[in-house]
Order: sequence, then C-alpha cells, then structure tokens
Amino acid sequence: MHQEIDVLVSEVGPRDGLQSIKRIMPTKSKILWINALASSGLREIEVGSFVSPSLMPQMADCASLVREANKLENLSVLALVPNLKGAEHAIAAGARKLTMPISASRKHSLNNIGKTPEEAIEEVRRVCLLSDSMCLEQCPNIEVGISTAFGCTLEGAVSEDWVIEMAGLLAKAGADSIGLSDTTGYANPNQIKRMFRRLRSEIGVEKMAGAHLHNTRGQGLANVLAALEVDVATFDSSLGGLGGCPFAPGATGNIVTEDLVFMLEAMGLHTGIDLDALIAAREVLLSGLPGEVIYGNVPEAGLPKGFTYASGRNVT
Amino acid sequence: MHQEIDVLVSEVGPRDGLQSIKRIMPTKSKILWINALASSGLREIEVGSFVSPSLMPQMADCASLVREANKLENLSVLALVPNLKGAEHAIAAGARKLTMPISASRKHSLNNIGKTPEEAIEEVRRVCLLSDSMCLEQCPNIEVGISTAFGCTLEGAVSEDWVIEMAGLLAKAGADSIGLSDTTGYANPNQIKRMFRRLRSEIGVEKMAGAHLHNTRGQGLANVLAALEVDVATFDSSLGGLGGCPFAPGATGNIVTEDLVFMLEAMGLHTGIDLDALIAAREVLLSGLPGEVIYGNVPEAGLPKGFTYASGRNVT
Repeated sequence: MHQEIDVLVSEVGPRDGLQSIKRIMPTKSKILWINALASSGLREIEVGSFVSPSLMPQMADCASLVREANKLENLSVLALVPNLKGAEHAIAAGARKLTMPISASRKHSLNNIGKTPEEAIEEVRRVCLLSDSMCLEQCPNIEVGISTAFGCTLEGAVSEDWVIEMAGLLAKAGADSIGLSDTTGYANPNQIKRMFRRLRSEIGVEKMAGAHLHNTRGQGLANVLAALEVDVATFDSSLGGLGGCPFAPGATGNIVTEDLVFMLEAMGLHTGIDLDALIAAREVLLSGLPGEVIYGNVPEAGLPKGFTYASGRNVT
Repeated sequence: MHQEIDVLVSEVGPRDGLQSIKRIMPTKSKILWINALASSGLREIEVGSFVSPSLMPQMADCASLVREANKLENLSVLALVPNLKGAEHAIAAGARKLTMPISASRKHSLNNIGKTPEEAIEEVRRVCLLSDSMCLEQCPNIEVGISTAFGCTLEGAVSEDWVIEMAGLLAKAGADSIGLSDTTGYANPNQIKRMFRRLRSEIGVEKMAGAHLHNTRGQGLANVLAALEVDVATFDSSLGGLGGCPFAPGATGNIVTEDLVFMLEAMGLHTGIDLDALIAAREVLLSGLPGEVIYGNVPEAGLPKGFTYASGRNVT
C-alpha cells in the first residue's frame, strides 16, 4: 500500500489527541476530521482506543469510527487496544491493525494500565493468540509500542537493555511489529540512534514498527532526523500537536504532523501528503472542538516561497 | 578560550532579540541580563548592534554594553556592525569581535542594508582594512554571517552556488570567519549538511563560523543536528527564542537557547552551560521587559528526572 512513499506518517490525533481532552468530540465531527486527514494523503490514522468507555468516554465510539474509516481507500486504520477485551471489540468492529502500548517503566506501566511489564507482555501474547484464532481471511496485525522507552517521569532513566529485552520478548509473544515511544519527551538524538539500531538488531528490520516521539522538550523533529538516519521509516504525529500522555505528569506534546511532513518533504522524502490539505484539516478539527488550542509552526508561518515537494511539485 | 567545550553556543538575544522589540530595555537591565547569561556559562554573547540610533533606538547603548561586557571573564563579546561607520564605533568602544550580516538575496540585501550583495562585500573589505589598520595590540576579529543563505521570503530559492561563491569572496575580502544564516526559517537538514560541507570546502575549516538557524517552521533543532553531523561547532540562539529578522516578513523565531543547550548536553556535547542558571536568566530578561512573551519547551517542561549533563553531572 505504501510503495510510492518513503516515510509513513501515522496520524494519532483522533486517538492520542482526543483522549487527552476532556471534551468529547461528536462522532460525526470525528468522521469529518478523519476524512479530511485521509484526503490530505495520510496513509495511516489511529482512529481511537478500545478502552473502557467509563474510563475514557471520549473513545466510546471507536467501533463506529473503525467501520467508517475502513470505507476509505488507501488507508491503514489503526485502533489502540489496552488489553484482550479491547482486542475482542476491535476485531469484532473489523479493525485490521491493532496497536498495544506496553510500558518499559514498571511504575508507568502500573499507573497506565495497572499491570507490570511482564503481565503486559502476557496480555500481548493472549491478543496475538486471539488474532490468530479469530480471523478467517486475514489476521489483524498486532503492533506494540514500547512506551517510556527513553526514560520515565516517575522512574527517571529506564534500562536500555531492558527495553531491548522487552522487544525480543514481545516478538516471541507474537507481535507483528514493535516500535519505541518517547512518551515523556526525554529522548535525545544519540539515544534514538542507539536504541533503534539495537531494536533492529534484536528483532530484525521486518518486525520494526516506527517511532512515537514527543516534542515536550522541543526535540521532536531532531529525534525524527536521528531516527531517519538509522532507517526508521514510520513516525507517529498529531495534527496541531494535539495530545500527549495523560498519565505521565508534565509529558505533553505529540510532534506536529504539519511540521513533520514539511521536514520530510523538504528533505526529498515522499510522504504522499499535501500540506495545504493537511493544514485545511485543522479547521475541520477545530469545528469539532471549537476553541481548542492547537500548535504548529508551518501552519503559522506558511510554506516557503517556491517550496518544492519531494515529488518535484513546486508551490508558487 | 573554548578548549573545554565541544560546542560554542553564541547567545544573540541582547542584539537579535531586543532589536525585534519596539520597547527599549533600559541599559541597566541589559547589563543585569548579560551578566546573568554569562553566569550561566555562556562563552559568547552578541550584546548589541552599532546601527544608527535613529534607525534602532533599542541599540543606542551598544558602546556601553561592550565596555561592561568586556569586564566579564571568559566571555567573547560580539557586536553587530552593519557598515564601516558601525565598525569604527565598535572598535572605538573596545569591541574585539564584530559580526557583519551580508545577505545572499539581492532583494533582502537591498531591503535590509540598502546595498547589493557585491556592495556589501566591498563594505566588509573596508571594515577588514580598518580593523587591520586601527589596532595596535590585537585586531578585532571580523565574522560575517551570510543571511538568507537557505532561501528568502522575497526571492524564494537563493542560488546555492552564489552563496558559496560569496563565502569565497568574503574570505578574500579579509573576513576572519564566515557562517551561514537561515534568516527565513527555510532550511531543511539535507540542505544544511550540503551547504556547510560546501562552505568548509570553499573556505577551509579554520575560517568557518557557525550556523544561525531559525525555528520559524519548527526545524531549528533538527537543522542543528544536521549541522553537527558536518562538524559545525558554533550555533547562535536566543534566550526564550526572543527575536528574528524584522525585515523578512513572517520570519520570526530564533532557536531557543535553553532547548538547544538541553539537546547538546543530552547528546554528551559539553557547552559549559548550566541549564538551571540559564532558565533563571529568563526572569532577569523579563524583569527588564515586563510581560514580554518568550518561548522554550525545556523551561516549560523542566529537566528530565535524573538528567545527566555531558560532564556526567546528574540532576536529582
């Protein structure tokens, strides 16, 4: 599906962004927003989370969103599942790609999902077995993001050896792909290079998912550049920088999709995304969440005069 | 002077920041701020501009600032000079390092200093001759920053060949060092690498000054990372991201010193700067410019738990 692009930008706003906001965006508005995002050329969107609606009422309509988004062409529809129960709901709704967050930090894991990392790995195993058993045509793809992989606001430094060991255990548990998340905005470019190199050598390039990076300390795009240099080719980001991790105090700030796409295209890396259409999707987001504060330097400053996309297309 | 550091962070706030603001910071406040900046460990500060006070009354006290800052130990005191007359004043005030901005874009050059690039190069030659002739003990160091080196809001793309040719002409005209400035926030990491590689091969590493990068489109630190990879070892930045270029419409946003220093130290590159002291200098800045909006992710988010400086010093 992604043959004609160099880097996959995976938009997490409808899940990661909206779950950090107490207000509930109406389902119709979410669908309009997801449509606008897909129209800009985004090839993957994380549409929601199959978490308990009592815990996160913002995500209660996830099944509807999966069904609607599945109608869109050329779109990989991602849904977060915190556990086996969530995975059952996701698969029943027709989700073909599930993402599970597993924290490397013991304290963060307990705070975030109420499980130790080892228990969380066991839950991944159960989800993978379910995926293998339930599907007739094509098993849903199970992606795992190791969160707090670069440090934790509760624990401080997280053992890099342990993060890599976890990745190996997750691969053995049946995960199709495994990525690393800088949930807390602690990562620096050297660490990013070191860890993704080690990840690749531990699980092999075919099982490598992408990088979920935060801009909490302004390092988001520098960390993307570092990851690109060790062949990471998938990046999570959020339109307008919406969202972060609500369970890690002080850790706000997904990287801004608009600024990420600008960097990639300016560097000659095809994303398949049109920046004007992407920027227009901000209005669609805001019409569903009037008055919400969103971020982004490129939307503010505009494209450079004569900007050239990776395709060679020029902006006049 | 800088033997014990890996990267020189050159603070431009008192010049680049304050010249973008209409309010005039009192000289006493500027001196307090410059002292606070130097106390944080910064080794170079651009204290002001010897521009006509009728054009920029904010900079009218530059001679006093040079004299005051010269009293500080371990500090390279930089002053901007737009032309020969400014250089005369600067040298008379005791400035030992002058920086001249020369624009590669013809339109920007005319708008900014009322000269063509060729005329500006001639002015650099006159300043270098003056510097050679006027000084008894040690000639002031003449640094030139080629602005709009990565594109111009008025002209769009700027010929890379011309930028490199200019650097060669400036070296022949007598400039001690030549750097490149992304005045408009147009640069991308690939372009940064390509251009600094070419600059080094044109003028030699001993004549290479640093990179003056803007965060206008959020690319500031990614561009720093790219420049580090081609051995650029000096970066301009501004405390709180104050300032930009008042003559390039829409081009705001120096990179934030606090976020830059955080990245460098986290990567194990010694800057000699203490982040807590640097962040404390924001209050000194704000006490001289009450209510001014300043930026910075690290000051907002705080240092990571257990953050380790390049020196190995740990934050608890």
